[in-house]
Amino acid sequence: MTMTRRSPLTSCTLAIVLGSVSFLACSAALADDIEDAIEYRQDALGVMAWQIGPLGQMAQGKREFDADIFAQRAANLAAVAPLPWEGFVEGSLQNDDHGVQTDALPAIAEDRADFDERNQALVNETATLAELAQGEDRDAMFEQVAKVGNTCKGCHDNFRAE
Amino acid sequence: MTMTRRSPLTSCTLAIVLGSVSFLACSAALADDIEDAIEYRQDALGVMAWQIGPLGQMAQGKREFDADIFAQRAANLAAVAPLPWEGFVEGSLQNDDHGVQTDALPAIAEDRADFDERNQALVNETATLAELAQGEDRDAMFEQVAKVGNTCKGCHDNFRAE
Repeated sequence: MTMTRRSPLTSCTLAIVLGSVSFLACSAALADDIEDAIEYRQDALGVMAWQIGPLGQMAQGKREFDADIFAQRAANLAAVAPLPWEGFVEGSLQNDDHGVQTDALPAIAEDRADFDERNQALVNETATLAELAQGEDRDAMFEQVAKVGNTCKGCHDNFRAE
Repeated sequence: MTMTRRSPLTSCTLAIVLGSVSFLACSAALADDIEDAIEYRQDALGVMAWQIGPLGQMAQGKREFDADIFAQRAANLAAVAPLPWEGFVEGSLQNDDHGVQTDALPAIAEDRADFDERNQALVNETATLAELAQGEDRDAMFEQVAKVGNTCKGCHDNFRAE
């Protein structure tokens, strides 16, 4: 999603180049864009959390396995997994100047390559889960849920405040 | 998504049937589930709003058309369009007893068939948009963005508080 990651800022940047808005007006627009981006990524991550919940419960034996629900949740999770990351725009981390509460650590800016790599790993792991969910190997599905969970956790451990 | 729409309530309903939890304990669990469902659907609708933004701007000539971005946004929108509706669980509307602010009107419970039909229409219209975005007929893409927008609006007019 590198293509669209910075898109919320594009029109404002263009406006500066063209000299058609004052610097102050543009700063305000940027702040709004940053807040929108934070809320967007929180929304997308919230959708992922909702979708992964029943998968985790089934994998841990806390909820009866249902192949159709498992497959639908896995497909939904894989569909949403590529989306949140474009919301991590410049100026949107925990110590940046904006009006939204966020747990996203400055480490994201300091090691963006690692962050991007972990996001891509999640996209790949959820795609694998959605594929396995089309089959009949329940052990493989449950192992893959654990892999997805560990991929979430690895990123949270490094880049999200406790 | 009829299959999974009521899933957040399933384990509690089952617990009542088995008599394994008290009615009060279950009411509390239900309230939590309902609040989670409201937040989930708001998250999913927030993701859709973010994705449709640039499509609307391009269709209205407020932003330069970029075929790749248009196609990516349209695909993202179509991927998320089936998701929010399972969050409209029983007891989660504006006059129901829960702790979350929601604009979802009681009319949804009163005419669920119409609500479901409109949701399905949105799923279909966004799928058509994603398909058109793979082609080269820009006018058709822009017309389809308007159709998607009108489908959103039709549902909001009937089922969302101003």
